[in-house]
Amino acid sequence: MYKLTKIEGGVCAADGFYADGVSAGLKAKGAKDMAFVYSDTLCEIASTFTTNKMTAAPIRHYKQKGYFQTNFVLINSKNANAMTGKEGITDIDDILDTLPKDIINPVMSSTGVIGVRLPKEKIITGAKLFDPSQKNPNAAAEAIMTTDTFSKQIAYKVELEDGSSFHIGAMAKGAGMINPAMATMLCFITTDAAVEKKEMQKILKENLATTFNAASVDGDTSTNDTVMLFSNAKSGVYHATAFQEALHNIMRFLAREMVRDGEGATKLVTYKVTGAKDDEEAEIVAKTLSNSLLVKTALYGEDPNWGRIASTVGASGVTAFEDTLSISFDDICVYEAGVLHFDKEMEAKASKVMKKSEFTISCDLGINEGAFTAFGCDLGHEYVKINADYRT
Amino acid sequence: MYKLTKIEGGVCAADGFYADGVSAGLKAKGAKDMAFVYSDTLCEIASTFTTNKMTAAPIRHYKQKGYFQTNFVLINSKNANAMTGKEGITDIDDILDTLPKDIINPVMSSTGVIGVRLPKEKIITGAKLFDPSQKNPNAAAEAIMTTDTFSKQIAYKVELEDGSSFHIGAMAKGAGMINPAMATMLCFITTDAAVEKKEMQKILKENLATTFNAASVDGDTSTNDTVMLFSNAKSGVYHATAFQEALHNIMRFLAREMVRDGEGATKLVTYKVTGAKDDEEAEIVAKTLSNSLLVKTALYGEDPNWGRIASTVGASGVTAFEDTLSISFDDICVYEAGVLHFDKEMEAKASKVMKKSEFTISCDLGINEGAFTAFGCDLGHEYVKINADYRT
Repeated sequence: MYKLTKIEGGVCAADGFYADGVSAGLKAKGAKDMAFVYSDTLCEIASTFTTNKMTAAPIRHYKQKGYFQTNFVLINSKNANAMTGKEGITDIDDILDTLPKDIINPVMSSTGVIGVRLPKEKIITGAKLFDPSQKNPNAAAEAIMTTDTFSKQIAYKVELEDGSSFHIGAMAKGAGMINPAMATMLCFITTDAAVEKKEMQKILKENLATTFNAASVDGDTSTNDTVMLFSNAKSGVYHATAFQEALHNIMRFLAREMVRDGEGATKLVTYKVTGAKDDEEAEIVAKTLSNSLLVKTALYGEDPNWGRIASTVGASGVTAFEDTLSISFDDICVYEAGVLHFDKEMEAKASKVMKKSEFTISCDLGINEGAFTAFGCDLGHEYVKINADYRT
Repeated sequence: MYKLTKIEGGVCAADGFYADGVSAGLKAKGAKDMAFVYSDTLCEIASTFTTNKMTAAPIRHYKQKGYFQTNFVLINSKNANAMTGKEGITDIDDILDTLPKDIINPVMSSTGVIGVRLPKEKIITGAKLFDPSQKNPNAAAEAIMTTDTFSKQIAYKVELEDGSSFHIGAMAKGAGMINPAMATMLCFITTDAAVEKKEMQKILKENLATTFNAASVDGDTSTNDTVMLFSNAKSGVYHATAFQEALHNIMRFLAREMVRDGEGATKLVTYKVTGAKDDEEAEIVAKTLSNSLLVKTALYGEDPNWGRIASTVGASGVTAFEDTLSISFDDICVYEAGVLHFDKEMEAKASKVMKKSEFTISCDLGINEGAFTAFGCDLGHEYVKINADYRT
């Protein structure tokens, strides 16, 4: 047995990890735009990156190095260092070369506008503000934000029966370009658990499908998506099931927070698909629903337009039948195996659910046991505003 | 040789075809909501329908009948007769049974809200207004509109070298749920060409990929999508190449008109993808671009955000390389095989293109000969407004 306790501290919750956020003048008005995560001993790294073919320079830079351990991550917002060619890579080398000598194999990560070279001098100057004694997880989480309206952090203490314990903490950013195939999201997880590199890589990958890859804001996949997990093993303690559960909770929480903070979003909707031919088809349905413009605008309009849900299930291309399909808004079943329960009273009840800031749309396809749960949000005027005016 | 001449007359342009639009009280304020298309001799039919699994009742009703000829189509807007179970089918029988005896094998087609039974009595009363002597193609085209802001018609006279001729005319509706895999679109094409059923079915299908299926407003596929081509062969004349060309022009014109009238759209954008590994990959890229929320909102913001174009190409999953990709806005090439031409002057030029109501975004992947052209529009506040408030 073990016990998970939510604690404060974000990426600094685990022993030996330090973090801070500073302003390097990339964002306007002195807003924080550079973050550091530092470990006082070397870390093993597990990672997973975007499937976008136009992979950003920091990811290519990381991958080119092969196996290594590190004690430092430098993150900047406002500029993605993507579509910047070979110069994008040398810019990273130039920046990392200026770091203090006790920084070993530093990793860089970027998010922001695509296709513009990094403002190298500003970042080099900003990096000099790094102070290894700082534990400011809030400042770090704030510095990595782009269109995010709130910062995203979480941490757990994991206590085992023998009284020993370890910690996992994380911070993430992402509010748009969030999509089932990874997202413009950066997520940095730190742990003092004594987990082996191979094991943590495996657990990280396994958790992706039901967490970040089940979340969609706008169906887009960015050039910079990154999830990195750093372990310095300082606790000397490890428990596979507990670690897996804590990591899953962390990733699921952050994925849902990103959708909740989806650009212009006012609602966090869980799409629970059951009864599909198999899990793959359930996943297709859940993701088609969470990405449908017509469903997303109906959510924004707080309209229990179950017909659009049904039509979208049909459009997803999976095995589906009108007379076995059931649709519910939370526990209000409006369409049950081909029978419509949508009189004025039911419509009023369903409308009430739609007004909530968080609810579940369930679709049972009534065919077999396939199931998948995805997370999505509505699409309203704010999304248009944010994305039409992003660069200006 | 042959000559194609654009003519007036829409679905009444071909010899022996009559049409009208009337108000049956389905729409508010006496707006036209029922249309008739009538031929004074029997027609062969070619058709193609939605790929949505929740196929609407009128399509299932049509398909159940097997082979037949007809002289009459009855179309209603405001109600899609979709997700209406077995009753949806019997409602159609009940309505068609009330038509005059000289109507042979009438076809019904519907568009509008999903999941509500047809207002049968209203439609039966409306059908009594049918007058076989009317040639009011404008009224018919208007009656089938839903969120369309203008009606869509076109017709061609096809003259052959020997002085003989035939005609093809059409009307269509569709402004949302328009998507690469067919759309909430109805399209009715009439011709007096002496084309064989098998031949016209083949040509209709062939033309789909580069016309309606290359057009996207919101990436959704409706329960009711229908393209029907009726030939009464009255001219006694046929020429395969001329017929194919005229039909392609008609379908391409209507597909583009639908996108131009995309819900809330202010721009009609042609996505010309070349240099892909093969045509399939080019099609994937073109359709991913035309459906990307981030690209669509950048269009609305008139922002030449070539980085989002590049990122979306990368996200589409096809073979693509940063250093072989080129991107142009009309003839302004901003990114050429990995080299950025995006100084202030180029940005100003590209911005000028983006302000046009119609322009082309070209992506050359620089790999091979694969090519595809798709049509899309921007997504702005009006789309949100229309779709958030559709049922109210």
